[in-house]
Amino acid sequence: MKIGLDIMGGDYAPKATVLGAIEAYKVLSGHILVLIGDKDAAVSILRENNFNPDNFEYIHTTEVIGMGEHPTKAVVQKPDSSISVGFKLLKEGQIQAFSSAGNTGAMLVGAMFSVKTIPGILRPAITTIVPKLKGGLGILLDVGANADCKPEVLVQFGVLGSLMAQNVYNIDNPRVALMNIGEEEEKGNLLCQATYPLMRETSLFNFVGNAEGRDLFSDNADVFVCDGFTGNIILKLAESFYVATRKKGLKDEFFDRFNYEQYGGSPILGVNGAVVVGHGISNPEAIKNMVLLSKDMVESELVGKITQAFQ
Amino acid sequence: MKIGLDIMGGDYAPKATVLGAIEAYKVLSGHILVLIGDKDAAVSILRENNFNPDNFEYIHTTEVIGMGEHPTKAVVQKPDSSISVGFKLLKEGQIQAFSSAGNTGAMLVGAMFSVKTIPGILRPAITTIVPKLKGGLGILLDVGANADCKPEVLVQFGVLGSLMAQNVYNIDNPRVALMNIGEEEEKGNLLCQATYPLMRETSLFNFVGNAEGRDLFSDNADVFVCDGFTGNIILKLAESFYVATRKKGLKDEFFDRFNYEQYGGSPILGVNGAVVVGHGISNPEAIKNMVLLSKDMVESELVGKITQAFQ
Repeated sequence: MKIGLDIMGGDYAPKATVLGAIEAYKVLSGHILVLIGDKDAAVSILRENNFNPDNFEYIHTTEVIGMGEHPTKAVVQKPDSSISVGFKLLKEGQIQAFSSAGNTGAMLVGAMFSVKTIPGILRPAITTIVPKLKGGLGILLDVGANADCKPEVLVQFGVLGSLMAQNVYNIDNPRVALMNIGEEEEKGNLLCQATYPLMRETSLFNFVGNAEGRDLFSDNADVFVCDGFTGNIILKLAESFYVATRKKGLKDEFFDRFNYEQYGGSPILGVNGAVVVGHGISNPEAIKNMVLLSKDMVESELVGKITQAFQ
Repeated sequence: MKIGLDIMGGDYAPKATVLGAIEAYKVLSGHILVLIGDKDAAVSILRENNFNPDNFEYIHTTEVIGMGEHPTKAVVQKPDSSISVGFKLLKEGQIQAFSSAGNTGAMLVGAMFSVKTIPGILRPAITTIVPKLKGGLGILLDVGANADCKPEVLVQFGVLGSLMAQNVYNIDNPRVALMNIGEEEEKGNLLCQATYPLMRETSLFNFVGNAEGRDLFSDNADVFVCDGFTGNIILKLAESFYVATRKKGLKDEFFDRFNYEQYGGSPILGVNGAVVVGHGISNPEAIKNMVLLSKDMVESELVGKITQAFQ
């Protein structure tokens, strides 16, 4: 398998990304890591770290999409950016997975422009994992791709999250919950009220009803579905809470599992390829785990299984 | 001042509420606490605790609205419930404040049926406080009264939160932020995109732009405005995070300030009276603080100031 990594993406790129590639190399036996970006910069960082540059393949690019750039404009106007080229390679099958800690919006737009959405999927979703207090993990989606969603889109997120939980995290018959503000069916905003009956009737996943904010770390469900506005606020709030525990010197295995470095990144589900977006502040450890997650997505044949489910 | 307390509201009522009334009595010099509910039960609990029942006034009621009851139905069908009677007393001016740890929906409906919404207010909001990492606190609203909101309603919440911060918490020229999923004006869901320009143009409060989930505990703003769906999820998630820190044996002054017991309850802003809703699991300490918060609302003349602002 050839795994593409955008070495220009992230606040500490290319140093953090190239060092992350070294870490990934150590555990990626038999797979080839393709570094996409400024080859000279990469080789020089590798040499400084006494690492043989021949262990990687390279696709040299000359442009970089900045973290603050407008996604669509940037992807169109910078065809030789590491993100644009990465997606070109993914589309052509020259790499089987692509990940970047760069501009999330550009990654989403790039995916939709190049490998495109899987037929039948209304909107792709960005997912994240959430640790459970009792151990193990859950999946939350969407965390930012779609600020406004229709009920049918949320139902599809249930399918995507369920397949992800099953195939990548080996969770059997994943329990899917709708993020809401009450347990009863009639509770919630108009979106949830319209979504609940659709989820209750579906045979596409194992719907277990509404979940509330307090249930996110519980073992009541494995997949939590919400629109991207709600999910993004939850994600950033949880992250800030984790940061607060660290600032206060509180260390605990549960809170440590909030650490984005551990889970590496957020897959974009619903597009025709294994695509993972990393946190902007990714360090080498996070980059390594992002690469490994993209590999897991390929090995679990998740994209094929999603395609099948929507046929 | 006469302060009304529903002694039948909450999971541990009437014991926790009556014991909370004793605690409140100790610091409420010059004010009279009116206990609304089963008088015999109250007197018996007071005697058990060697407390002179004559220190309180009583309004005996025979009905109780359960935590799970349908708010509107319950308020209509149980006119002699402690909540219905409490609002009757508030409307008639026999008490100047009313608080309850009972059914939140019934408290909201009861307030709107009896003292009614302040003229000009589109929808009342339930508020909560959020601790800041650097000390001090912010205000978040709405946390559950309105799952779906219009842009103009969010603008009004900005006014309500700002007046609350100013008058009850003595925050000078409070900074009001819109809860969103990006810093830039054009970010967010359709609601936020429509609300931002209205807030930017308003002279009714000091708008400081968008806040993200990660800003909630920061010192970037004093008032965080969102619809009741988003706010309720934030509130319950933050609460569960606090519970997790306690379960893990992590103790810190910052996390302790998440403890609902300390702040006592959530004022319903925008109605014609000082009304506070407490947490269902309120213990005596929480009840005491809920009563004190309702007193603070009266002393700060918050309702009058809100009325003036909307004239």
